[in-house]
Amino acid sequence: MSDFPKHVEFHEEGPREGFQIEKTIYPLEERAALVDALAESGLVQIQVASFVNPKTVPAMADAEQLFAAIHRKPGVRYTALWLNEKGFHKAAATPGVDLDGKLMFYATDGLSMRNNNCTADIMHERQIGWADLYAEHDVPLESAYIMAAFGCNFEGPVPLSRITDIARFMVERFSDEGRPIPRIYLADTVGWANPEEVKRRIAAVREIAPEARIGLHLHDTRGLGGANVYAALQMGVDLFDSSVAGLGGCPFANHGDTSAAGNVCTEDMVYLCAELGIETGIDTEALVEAGRLAEKIIGRRLNGKLIRNGSLEKYRREAG
Amino acid sequence: MSDFPKHVEFHEEGPREGFQIEKTIYPLEERAALVDALAESGLVQIQVASFVNPKTVPAMADAEQLFAAIHRKPGVRYTALWLNEKGFHKAAATPGVDLDGKLMFYATDGLSMRNNNCTADIMHERQIGWADLYAEHDVPLESAYIMAAFGCNFEGPVPLSRITDIARFMVERFSDEGRPIPRIYLADTVGWANPEEVKRRIAAVREIAPEARIGLHLHDTRGLGGANVYAALQMGVDLFDSSVAGLGGCPFANHGDTSAAGNVCTEDMVYLCAELGIETGIDTEALVEAGRLAEKIIGRRLNGKLIRNGSLEKYRREAG
Repeated sequence: MSDFPKHVEFHEEGPREGFQIEKTIYPLEERAALVDALAESGLVQIQVASFVNPKTVPAMADAEQLFAAIHRKPGVRYTALWLNEKGFHKAAATPGVDLDGKLMFYATDGLSMRNNNCTADIMHERQIGWADLYAEHDVPLESAYIMAAFGCNFEGPVPLSRITDIARFMVERFSDEGRPIPRIYLADTVGWANPEEVKRRIAAVREIAPEARIGLHLHDTRGLGGANVYAALQMGVDLFDSSVAGLGGCPFANHGDTSAAGNVCTEDMVYLCAELGIETGIDTEALVEAGRLAEKIIGRRLNGKLIRNGSLEKYRREAG
Repeated sequence: MSDFPKHVEFHEEGPREGFQIEKTIYPLEERAALVDALAESGLVQIQVASFVNPKTVPAMADAEQLFAAIHRKPGVRYTALWLNEKGFHKAAATPGVDLDGKLMFYATDGLSMRNNNCTADIMHERQIGWADLYAEHDVPLESAYIMAAFGCNFEGPVPLSRITDIARFMVERFSDEGRPIPRIYLADTVGWANPEEVKRRIAAVREIAPEARIGLHLHDTRGLGGANVYAALQMGVDLFDSSVAGLGGCPFANHGDTSAAGNVCTEDMVYLCAELGIETGIDTEALVEAGRLAEKIIGRRLNGKLIRNGSLEKYRREAG
């Protein structure tokens, strides 16, 4: 039988992933309202914005104002993304940002060059510096992402050995130095994962870093998002990034078509967990309402399914 | 480990499911061209149309002409749907229809009343007559569908015992009478299934009718279609109905919103199989082209993901 976790944690990325990829800049108060609606659903962590170059990503230029506009709910972490030390400093200087000490590893030079203008190996060495920086700011080291963990649109298939090499680097340069990385995320922003490869890579990373909690950052680029989440649940994974209404995407995967397919959809995956008897602490119906708000703001049909058809709660209630 | 089948058969239902649910009547030659494109992909069975009351379903009124317009490809079965004996007689009188002897069982009175204007029990008794009728026409008894096999929008949850009762009816009234039903389908047109329930119900039916091949007819109403297919593959299921580009839907599940969510998407699920190393005999790229044709005909964005983002073949080829 399956080794399902009892409780699963979803980290909402819709506000950051979703609006970052759009060409339109949506009104600040609408974006803040979406964050507030998401917080009401019981989500414990919401990635609000990224601190990146405003010239490259104009949609994120007002990240500081957005954090100021949120009505903070106790118990919810409002996080941000940064891609370099400069971004971290901006985030650290912004009131209301809950800093999570995260590292970024790359399985391919191709994606690392695009995102960081350096090879993956150089980026990995830089992560030592990131960890030092977090320590200086009293930000606990929390998680490490392995980007392009299943494949890369610039380099093709990523062999499993590349992932295990990175996991070994984490152990040798962090665990063995007395500062283990609590969470390791396999990230598939470009939609290469399939359920069996999800299982294989989780098992391989666990073997090398058994003390780390595994997380998944999955996109639904080729329609396998739900199957991949289910496969991870079967492996006992209890930590997922996701986006309300399936917002988000990847500029390299979707060829500029921002509605082609985004992250796995939070409310659909929360519903999957509920149907499987796995707790999430999230009110599916409230999340569906947040998803509908997201759709209203974006102004076009989004990819989530529950925002269209609802959960089964209504039918079960009527049936008594 | 998983008990994947070596080879999986997909039966395409897009032309029937997809156009049947639409209010628009699309040009006959375009629908015929879609059937022809699907046949080129390597699909072995395509459900072209239904023989139903043209007043209720005007989109299917020209089923006979549609069959005449198809350029038949050897090795492909061009099938039809009927909901009663009158429909079967029409199908049998239409040149080009490959008659498959199928029965229809209902897990709930609610859905049976809507579709057949009789209770499920009466409908089940009628199936004896259907089987006799097929025998008279030398049509081999081939499959039995259990409708609302996971739940029903009119009656709520469907207990597992209801499914096993129907399976027992099949054994007692068919197998024991010397005419076993070769294939039993669990049908979830209303989107109640989840992966664990898929496994549970497959196992339960197999226990009662071990000689039957199990098929699944799944819809992606709540975003679990792919996970449900994957769960069935893990159980060794090798027979699926599906629709190109995710066409189709259910008037009772989608509240008249024909684009809310249809059947599981053929090319996305063929891609899933390919990624898992399971043969289908289908050319994914040709099927993606057929999906894009379907989208062009329907004239709005369809739910399939590969029609947007393509498979990984291109990237793998470029990577050498």
